[in-house]
Amino acid sequence: MSQSEHEVFAEVATMMADTASCVVRPWFRRAVAVESKTDASPVTVADRSAERVMRAILAERLPDHGIFGEEFGPENPGARYQWLLDPIDGTRAFVTGRPLFGTLIALLKDGRPVLGLLDQPVLGERWLGVAGQPTRFSSTLGGAVGTRQSVALGDAELSCTSPEMLERAPHDGWQALKAAARRMTWGGDCYAYGLLAIGQIDLIAECDMNPWDWAALVPIIEGAGGVISAWDGASLKVDGDRTVLAAGSPALHREAVRVLSAKGR
Amino acid sequence: MSQSEHEVFAEVATMMADTASCVVRPWFRRAVAVESKTDASPVTVADRSAERVMRAILAERLPDHGIFGEEFGPENPGARYQWLLDPIDGTRAFVTGRPLFGTLIALLKDGRPVLGLLDQPVLGERWLGVAGQPTRFSSTLGGAVGTRQSVALGDAELSCTSPEMLERAPHDGWQALKAAARRMTWGGDCYAYGLLAIGQIDLIAECDMNPWDWAALVPIIEGAGGVISAWDGASLKVDGDRTVLAAGSPALHREAVRVLSAKGR
Repeated sequence: MSQSEHEVFAEVATMMADTASCVVRPWFRRAVAVESKTDASPVTVADRSAERVMRAILAERLPDHGIFGEEFGPENPGARYQWLLDPIDGTRAFVTGRPLFGTLIALLKDGRPVLGLLDQPVLGERWLGVAGQPTRFSSTLGGAVGTRQSVALGDAELSCTSPEMLERAPHDGWQALKAAARRMTWGGDCYAYGLLAIGQIDLIAECDMNPWDWAALVPIIEGAGGVISAWDGASLKVDGDRTVLAAGSPALHREAVRVLSAKGR
Repeated sequence: MSQSEHEVFAEVATMMADTASCVVRPWFRRAVAVESKTDASPVTVADRSAERVMRAILAERLPDHGIFGEEFGPENPGARYQWLLDPIDGTRAFVTGRPLFGTLIALLKDGRPVLGLLDQPVLGERWLGVAGQPTRFSSTLGGAVGTRQSVALGDAELSCTSPEMLERAPHDGWQALKAAARRMTWGGDCYAYGLLAIGQIDLIAECDMNPWDWAALVPIIEGAGGVISAWDGASLKVDGDRTVLAAGSPALHREAVRVLSAKGR
């Protein structure tokens, strides 16, 4: 991407996040009448509305780009630039009133993430990563961009969204990683990667991940000094093995890849 | 408690929470130099400072009352009124930059909770429960006091802080409860009880709990229309079995007690 393309794409992504936030926020913690069970749930309405407004902005500003979102069909599937949209990553957090879900917006060029945005609409926290640039972060809760660089595995804060996720993955390596880390925290979804980018946690190992779950996080983690890959250390790919490992530093990443790939017990 | 005692105690608890919030907030997401490892961590300093300022307020306003906190020795252990203080419930949330920890302030009269306050200092959310009164809730994130009353177990949102907690408890009943509920969300600490009080989740089953973990939550849950007890349905006691079950309605509570107490598989 040239510098001016960078700026246009970042501006469009920012407008998409601002707009999505406006349609998601009113549905957060909204009471649902039990009688209306046959209607769409608040999370479904928020999800669909946000994807619609983001698609509308892309149709106006970058009509030749491709779009892939969960709710509606793909646009321009053969295009070199592809936007991956996940309006509400962390459905469980959203439906239980926890303000730790996120809107994920990623731009892939030739299959590689070149821009990623993570927005927490209720708290007004936002991370923006552009390949080759330092990650930008804005929040009223505090924190500054930059992963922790000198943390050994035995001192590392490890995070994973849920134990259920791991039931669908090779288990031995993960158990060894958990045993080796200092402390484990459950819950997080995309927000945990934001916390890693501001040096609050050191390590995330997850599986059963889709491209729209991780694509936006690649430029954010890399632009904050961290490393993100599959569990075996290979680059994340749209047709990869669905595992994701993020670490605050290259040294910690190497150590985690080694532990995750150890066979048996 | 007479009406005027209610008001005095609620006013003192509110002042304690306001003051604790002031000393906790600056330590949230504070960068820790790796070199300063031998110094106290931000969470330890925040915890101790908050307990100190809360004790100072009680010493001035209610000097005959007892105080029990984790950091400093008991005051007036024989007094009829006992304050239980837990400045930072959810240490893992605090140290990983998640704004879902809480300050818990409880007042026991003859061993029974008569007042409870749960404060989230970073988000400025607060729940205040007084025995026999409706729970009060203030927040800029939305939501209103009142548990969901008509949710069957199969539709219930279940929450628990961590799977590790359950490794130290009888397991079969809990697994049956998880299987019977609609969905499981991990992570939460005291904040999950606040979400139950505003009708965002329906059921919490935890164990390995100390009195300062649950005492403040009793008036909050009861004043919002919910039920809170040990897993066997008995009232929570300072010398009880350390299990806690909270439910949005009496019917859901009965159902959960039944499932939790089923033997074997």
